[in-house]
Order: sequence, then structure tokens, then C-alpha cells
Amino acid sequence: MAARVVLVEPKYDGNVGSVARAMKNFGLSELVLVNPCPLGEDARRRAMHGIDILEGARTMGSLAVAVKGCGLVAGTTAVDTRSEKRFARISSTPREFAERVRGFGGRMALVFGREDDGLHDEEIKGCDALITIPASREYPVLNLSHAAAILFYELHQAPSARRRVASDMERGKLHDAFSDLVRATDYPRHKVERTQVMFRRLIGRAMPTKWEFHALIGVYTRATKRIARLEAQR
Amino acid sequence: MAARVVLVEPKYDGNVGSVARAMKNFGLSELVLVNPCPLGEDARRRAMHGIDILEGARTMGSLAVAVKGCGLVAGTTAVDTRSEKRFARISSTPREFAERVRGFGGRMALVFGREDDGLHDEEIKGCDALITIPASREYPVLNLSHAAAILFYELHQAPSARRRVASDMERGKLHDAFSDLVRATDYPRHKVERTQVMFRRLIGRAMPTKWEFHALIGVYTRATKRIARLEAQR
Repeated sequence: MAARVVLVEPKYDGNVGSVARAMKNFGLSELVLVNPCPLGEDARRRAMHGIDILEGARTMGSLAVAVKGCGLVAGTTAVDTRSEKRFARISSTPREFAERVRGFGGRMALVFGREDDGLHDEEIKGCDALITIPASREYPVLNLSHAAAILFYELHQAPSARRRVASDMERGKLHDAFSDLVRATDYPRHKVERTQVMFRRLIGRAMPTKWEFHALIGVYTRATKRIARLEAQR
Repeated sequence: MAARVVLVEPKYDGNVGSVARAMKNFGLSELVLVNPCPLGEDARRRAMHGIDILEGARTMGSLAVAVKGCGLVAGTTAVDTRSEKRFARISSTPREFAERVRGFGGRMALVFGREDDGLHDEEIKGCDALITIPASREYPVLNLSHAAAILFYELHQAPSARRRVASDMERGKLHDAFSDLVRATDYPRHKVERTQVMFRRLIGRAMPTKWEFHALIGVYTRATKRIARLEAQR
């Protein structure tokens, strides 16, 4: 499993160094920083033997660019209301996530938000999966590098068995096909976006194979075309 | 489960603060320090909301005194590939350990060694259990607070309160709605069954919530009805 670690606007360079060390501890190597704070002595000192990862980190201007080429984008969040209606926040535990992606053949992005206010809503909407570390209700907000270390640890433990997983492009096509179908049904406009996000999360959890993607795209596309053709005949 | 966290001769006070925070995150509260470095601003800053744990920490002169009253003493050790003999010690992973002590009624001590050379042989001999975090062979030495956070996380994981998962009936309705849609699209007959099975497997993996089921049923039903209505108008 190839995982790219993405830190969004980290504010303390020591945390960036700590994450680099944890990456080295668990066999990860690709670090991307989105608008980070300046990296100084604290980052280097705490990276320890992960210094090569820190020095090789790339800096990007936005999350969208940072996750380019990743077939699965997983965001981490401390907020888990366990409320279904807040669909955009339904998340997995690191263990559930690690088990689900076992055998995932593509490149995935593990996205961590700001130390103070995490990932913003727009960033969260772009994620295929959300991960929340189960913690004390009293104080569930973990240090950034602790959250990272725990997730890396879980992923490191999951033995891999490969199966063909859909690519970025196939995923995009499925989401487009679903959106087209939703629109073709005269869906209530105010509900369209959240239904799209719901679908993205559901598919993110299911981790469909290439074949499943194509079968599902086929059904949606046929239904949408049939509606269009029938409407044209009216 | 009551656990006392024991840090043996920590050298960096920032690490002590970080451990206090991680304890707070996972519902632990009793911290004992054996001959620690002086605790300064770094410790306080990194403890965050775990500051009460840091301030309540007791200091002892030896590990033997620090673990007094504990029915089980678990020491942590890194796999050190450089000295096989010294580390030819049978240890558990954090997960194995957590599973083993689930339901343990007494007080246990979780003992962490020095940042640079861990627990010494004599200290290790006094442990009832040893825990090693599985990590990269290339660099298996975790930051002290990362190791602590991972172990606390494992111990904290209880049979988790699952979110509301859809019932049998809802699942049946979703599969019916999907089948209806497939048929409404004049899907190739020989492919219908395997596409239904594909969908069942996919949903089985995604484990949708009640809300997600209803949203998806809504989309499919609308699409099928729309096709039927348009056909009737031809």
C-alpha cells in the first residue's frame, strides 16, 4: 500500500518533524505540506531518522493539488457526532479503515488538518473516507503527530492482499454518473449536494473493484440515458 | 481498567507533557515519574488539557517503588535489530496485550523507558509483560509519547458503540429498489443477476447507516418512477 501523508496548514514545525519520524517508523515516505508554517530547527530535531522524509517533503498551495493522483483520499477528524444526519462527518475508526483498505492497490492520501481547527468543511467534502480516533469524550483532540502515529500504526499492521481497485478516473466517472442520475430524477435541488457527498462516503467505505465500478456506472448511465431518450420522445 | 503510567528517567520534559496529553485523550489519569528531568515550560505547553495530570504527577526514586500496588507491570520495548541477543525477549503487540488484559480488574502499570536507551535489563526483569510496537525494521524506535499514545489507544478501544446500521428490512428495500432500476433500464437480462450480487456485496462492505439507505433508495425509486411515467406518456 502506498500512502501519501498530507498535512494541511500545520502551525507548529515540531509537529511536522514528529510526523516525519512517525512515517519513518511505519515505513511511509511521501510527505506533502499544504501552506505550512516555516520549518526550522524544531522540525529537524524532532524528525530524528525521518529527516530525509522532512527534507524531501513537497509544498503545495491547496489540498486539491496535494492529493492529485491518489485513488482514495482519507481525512482525519476529531469531531464525530455519531449523528447520521451530519452525514458529512460519518467516520471510521483507524482500525476499520485499515481493514477496509487492506489490499488497496493504488496510492492513497492520508490528510491531517490544522492543529487548532482541523479540516474545514470544504476540505472534508472532498474526502472519500473520514477517520476518527475513538478517544475520551472529555478531551478527544489528539496532538497532530499522535493522531498520525496511531493511524500509521494501524495501517502498518494490516497485512496486504492485493485486489484491483478502481483508479482516480474511474472513481470520478462513477461520481459523475451518479450525479447525472440524481439530476435526471428532478431531485430536490437543496438535497443534491448532500446526497452526492453521502454517495462519495459510501463508495469510499465500500472500496469497489474496477469491475464493480464499471457495473455501477453502467446501471446509472443506462438509467439516465433512458430518461433523456423518453423525455425527448414526449 | 485502571492503569498507572510510569515514565522512567525521561530526558525531555516536552515528552512528559505530550504523554500527559495523550493520557487525557484516552481517559487515563495517574502519572508517576522515576527520576525525571526538570519539568518546565515545554512540558506544560505540550500537556494542553492534560495539564492537571502533569501537575498531579508523583515523582519516585525507583521503578520498584513506582509500580507498588500494581497487580500487573507491563514494560514497553522497541525492537532493536542492532542487538538481537539483548532484545530476544518475548513481547506482545499492543493489540495482543489490550485483548489479554480486557476485563483485568486490578491496577496495572504501563512502564516506558528512557528516550535513548529504553528500559534497562534489571527493569525489564521486573515486568510481568513486555509490549513491543510492530514498526519498520529500518527505524523501529518511536518517540516516547507516540509509543504511549499507541498503547493508550489500544487499551481504550472497547467493543465500540456502533452507529445505527440499517435493518434487514431496509437492506431488502434497497436491493429491491436497485433491481427495479436495473430492470427499468432494459439491462441485458443475462447480466441482471450478477449486477444485483455485485451491488449486494458492495453494500455489505459499506455498511450504510439508516440515513444513507434511505437517501440511496430515494434516488433509485425516483429514477425508476420517472422512467415509468415517461414511458406511460409515450
